[in-house]
Amino acid sequence: MTQDLILPRSDLDFLLFDWLKVDDLTRRARFAGQDRFDYASVLDIYAKLAAELFATHNKKNDSQEPSFDGERVTVVEDVGVAMRAFSEAGLMSAAFPPEWGGLSLPSVVERAGMAYIMGANVASAGYAYLTIGNANLLMAHASPKQAAKYVPAMAQGRFFGTMCLSEPQAGSSLADIRTKAVPGADGRYRLFGNKMWISGGEHEVSENIVHLVLAKIPDANGQLPPGVQGISLFTVPRRLVNEDGSLGERNDVVPAGVNHKMGQRGLVNCLLNFGEGKFRPEGEVGALGEIVGEPGQGLAYMFHMMNEARISVGLTAAALAYTGYLHALDYAKTRTQGRLRSQRDPVSAPVPIIQHADVRRMLLAQKAYASGALAICLYSARLNDDVHSLEDAAARDEAHLLLELLTPITKSWTAQWGLVANELAIQVHGGYGYTREYNVEQFYRDNRLNPIHEGTFGIQAIDLLGRKTRMKGGGALKLLSARIAVTIDSANRIASLQRHARTLAKEWDRLQTVTSKLHALPDAEQQLANAGPYLEAFGHVVVGWLWLDQALTVTDLLQGPQASDFHRGKLAACDYFFGWELPKVAAWLAVLDPVERTPLDIRENWL
Amino acid sequence: MTQDLILPRSDLDFLLFDWLKVDDLTRRARFAGQDRFDYASVLDIYAKLAAELFATHNKKNDSQEPSFDGERVTVVEDVGVAMRAFSEAGLMSAAFPPEWGGLSLPSVVERAGMAYIMGANVASAGYAYLTIGNANLLMAHASPKQAAKYVPAMAQGRFFGTMCLSEPQAGSSLADIRTKAVPGADGRYRLFGNKMWISGGEHEVSENIVHLVLAKIPDANGQLPPGVQGISLFTVPRRLVNEDGSLGERNDVVPAGVNHKMGQRGLVNCLLNFGEGKFRPEGEVGALGEIVGEPGQGLAYMFHMMNEARISVGLTAAALAYTGYLHALDYAKTRTQGRLRSQRDPVSAPVPIIQHADVRRMLLAQKAYASGALAICLYSARLNDDVHSLEDAAARDEAHLLLELLTPITKSWTAQWGLVANELAIQVHGGYGYTREYNVEQFYRDNRLNPIHEGTFGIQAIDLLGRKTRMKGGGALKLLSARIAVTIDSANRIASLQRHARTLAKEWDRLQTVTSKLHALPDAEQQLANAGPYLEAFGHVVVGWLWLDQALTVTDLLQGPQASDFHRGKLAACDYFFGWELPKVAAWLAVLDPVERTPLDIRENWL
Repeated sequence: MTQDLILPRSDLDFLLFDWLKVDDLTRRARFAGQDRFDYASVLDIYAKLAAELFATHNKKNDSQEPSFDGERVTVVEDVGVAMRAFSEAGLMSAAFPPEWGGLSLPSVVERAGMAYIMGANVASAGYAYLTIGNANLLMAHASPKQAAKYVPAMAQGRFFGTMCLSEPQAGSSLADIRTKAVPGADGRYRLFGNKMWISGGEHEVSENIVHLVLAKIPDANGQLPPGVQGISLFTVPRRLVNEDGSLGERNDVVPAGVNHKMGQRGLVNCLLNFGEGKFRPEGEVGALGEIVGEPGQGLAYMFHMMNEARISVGLTAAALAYTGYLHALDYAKTRTQGRLRSQRDPVSAPVPIIQHADVRRMLLAQKAYASGALAICLYSARLNDDVHSLEDAAARDEAHLLLELLTPITKSWTAQWGLVANELAIQVHGGYGYTREYNVEQFYRDNRLNPIHEGTFGIQAIDLLGRKTRMKGGGALKLLSARIAVTIDSANRIASLQRHARTLAKEWDRLQTVTSKLHALPDAEQQLANAGPYLEAFGHVVVGWLWLDQALTVTDLLQGPQASDFHRGKLAACDYFFGWELPKVAAWLAVLDPVERTPLDIRENWL
Repeated sequence: MTQDLILPRSDLDFLLFDWLKVDDLTRRARFAGQDRFDYASVLDIYAKLAAELFATHNKKNDSQEPSFDGERVTVVEDVGVAMRAFSEAGLMSAAFPPEWGGLSLPSVVERAGMAYIMGANVASAGYAYLTIGNANLLMAHASPKQAAKYVPAMAQGRFFGTMCLSEPQAGSSLADIRTKAVPGADGRYRLFGNKMWISGGEHEVSENIVHLVLAKIPDANGQLPPGVQGISLFTVPRRLVNEDGSLGERNDVVPAGVNHKMGQRGLVNCLLNFGEGKFRPEGEVGALGEIVGEPGQGLAYMFHMMNEARISVGLTAAALAYTGYLHALDYAKTRTQGRLRSQRDPVSAPVPIIQHADVRRMLLAQKAYASGALAICLYSARLNDDVHSLEDAAARDEAHLLLELLTPITKSWTAQWGLVANELAIQVHGGYGYTREYNVEQFYRDNRLNPIHEGTFGIQAIDLLGRKTRMKGGGALKLLSARIAVTIDSANRIASLQRHARTLAKEWDRLQTVTSKLHALPDAEQQLANAGPYLEAFGHVVVGWLWLDQALTVTDLLQGPQASDFHRGKLAACDYFFGWELPKVAAWLAVLDPVERTPLDIRENWL
């Protein structure tokens, strides 16, 4: 697959340099000495690796999923080849600070590059982004000695990382985890329990695997502390690591089974047993782990990785949507079928299906979803860079607050509409799209995970309505409001965008009114009952804002020598979004003001 | 899998007997001597076979898809076992008239029964409904002698049937088929060409396969007539059938490959080559076929089968949606996770997830889609019974006209929202739903075919807006309007339904206004450009009407001794549909009045 079928560089360049003004970052201390040429060069490397080493085994990853014989997990060899090249190119540590051997790239550039890898092969990309997230957590929260044990090896791609949160009985509800970590005299902990849904949980692609494990430390009576306050975080390597960095014996963590997924099959997903005694000498029981930071702070630390993982989820959804769109576009330009109404003569040649308005509708929708999803992911990544590079503490706090508010949208809107985009990509391909001989049905299957993992759609909705829109007295909402107002003001000064500016102002006002009314409801169950459509409405308005904001940039560019069809397509996608998508907001808000109570009130046995 | 996880008999009984008054049919000559007890008994048989012989190999059908070694197609043995039992129980010919050895069941009852088979195993069900549709076409349009050659063998399950329309270069555009049928001196034809997407196209499950093939008869110069007018229909058996009914040699139709589908994997799907000479003695070339009816009428005849197949597609979508819903409901009642807002004490026991309002929302949505889809399929089947059993010719014509109008909805609404239902079933299951260890991800994959085959969503949309709403001077629309008005009138007399009656009246009026405006547009491209959302809006209003009409029946029943939670659930689903779904209609109509032109106007190279 060529790079052009994975992600269009034109859009990436536009989003990064024209719209998000990533060049400006180079004036900050953290990114001193970097320039746009560096960013372009590193994006070239991501794109090349994506096309030449990742896309090439995407189907193989799917048809030859990891197998488990009760002892070992076998993954197709191509994963290791691609991951070694990825690490050797310095991409694992691309955004690590120099003291950890990294290039200190802005997160927004690293994410843009990762989108190539994800679009090319989301399963293999998983090994990378989980490892990167794991290292980022350790750099932020582990002791220097602890981090030194793992992070350099991760940067080299010798160690991979996982996050071990869920258990068979505790999926979304982490308060109910039962994995226990018993402190030993040597300062280490012995872990016992079962962890479910562990991506990259067992394999021999890397020399070692570093599991970041949530567990509870029992009290003096051996009881586990209740709730999330009792959760601590531990590093539990698959193989123990000696003081000199060499690898020791197998730790007592073993796969008890692998899940056979609908998609993302190449990324092995395991049930892991900790401390069942298999790899420990007689009498010595428990998987050996070291605590990260303070006891009881595990969930807070894990949210460091989790929030990053949520942007990664959004980015995979965006990347899959984008490559699906590009495949559909390519197909629509080459597949001939039927005739236009103005030329029904049956002896005339059939036309490429892109000439049918309904096919263009499906392509435009995919473009609006895919590029809109990419835009919000990169916007969030840019905020993350602000959090870590702005001089002014208050400005950093503001960026952080806004990022917190946008995270559930960045995760969920992309997952929901990225999936719709992939569904449309299948539809454009007709019967061919339904076969595994083509690529698009896999994109759908791969993408279907995204509304589920790292916090389901429903969890994100409650996070947005119940928490993020309320925190700091609605401070995040005020910040967002201010930014949206700037866009509306600017758009109001451009004749061709005034109509959209008015629509956005109206929808945003309405959304704020509804938000206030919901927050004022005395009954918490009622308040959050319809959080799902609230998230949908909020997401659409936010993405509409980002489309209008991009249209401002485009309108400028269209005055200059750079003006191109690419820019005209951007405006069309913006028009499409306002014309076709924003009318849906009213339908979602219809069940929020007042709260439509049927789902709340229906009794179980009526269903 | 128990029957209760496939389809709830309570809803089937309600729809058939309480709502559609199927008992009334027994007063008509065609169904004389039948009674409700007969119908109940035959439904029992369908349900039992579905649970005991079809559901049992649904996963096997998926994981061990038909294989093709270049010569033979191998299908898992369970398909043959199930199909033989199905035929032996008389279900293949359940709706055939007695002169063809059938039970002469009303179509609506046969369809209700088939929904069990489809929900249990949609791939295996395909062999059945394609054979039934094939036989129905032959009984209607073939000569008695020709029909006698195949129909009884089909009734016995010894012969299966296919429909061969598409070709690699002609999917939706049948005018462009190139398969040629050359008349021979013996009155038979020799067929040459390639047919694509042939479900059940090659296998050895049955003794023989009867292909119904669209082809063109060349003119004196060997040229194929252009357009659809030049299409004729032929029977082309896999093995020739001798005068005495015994099987002769292989005919010259061979599989050139099988498609590897996303779902419905157990139903083999082939590329068939006709007349490539493999099975014919030297010098004798072409696949031998007999013409059905008159030359040039092929497409008209095929539409007999196609319209039936479109209801079958709708029914498979409804059945898959329903079984997905029942699986999700079962899971939601047993899976515990999290706590209610009123009980956040972390030491309290987690609650079954059905106690979370958002989960009930997802269940209600599935119920509204699945049961709504089943309702429109059975409503259409009931109209089909009217077409074939009403005494009065004018009344028959009216039923036919209304059925024609509702067919694109019956096919597409069900496919679109059945799929959404299956997606929600996955979501309710969380990570488990994403694995093949559970059933729901397969339902989604199986169902994804339905918006594509037998006329894509886009084709149905053009059929509805461009043809069905205009035919006979809008006569079909007037008939539908009259029926909707009756429901609105009745609902207006019941306090609890007045609000919905007003909503329906408003939406239907608006839809009619939009329809008139669109029909009046001078530019055909513009008129049909946004037919997709028109179909969506129309479908939602029609299904809303059927929900309200059911609510009328339920309101009556709730006064009597039969009143049950099932009926309260029906009202809740109706409330859900009006509260959550009908607000979407405005969003679809927003791009139709006036016509939003972005997809129409965008240039290819802007995409």
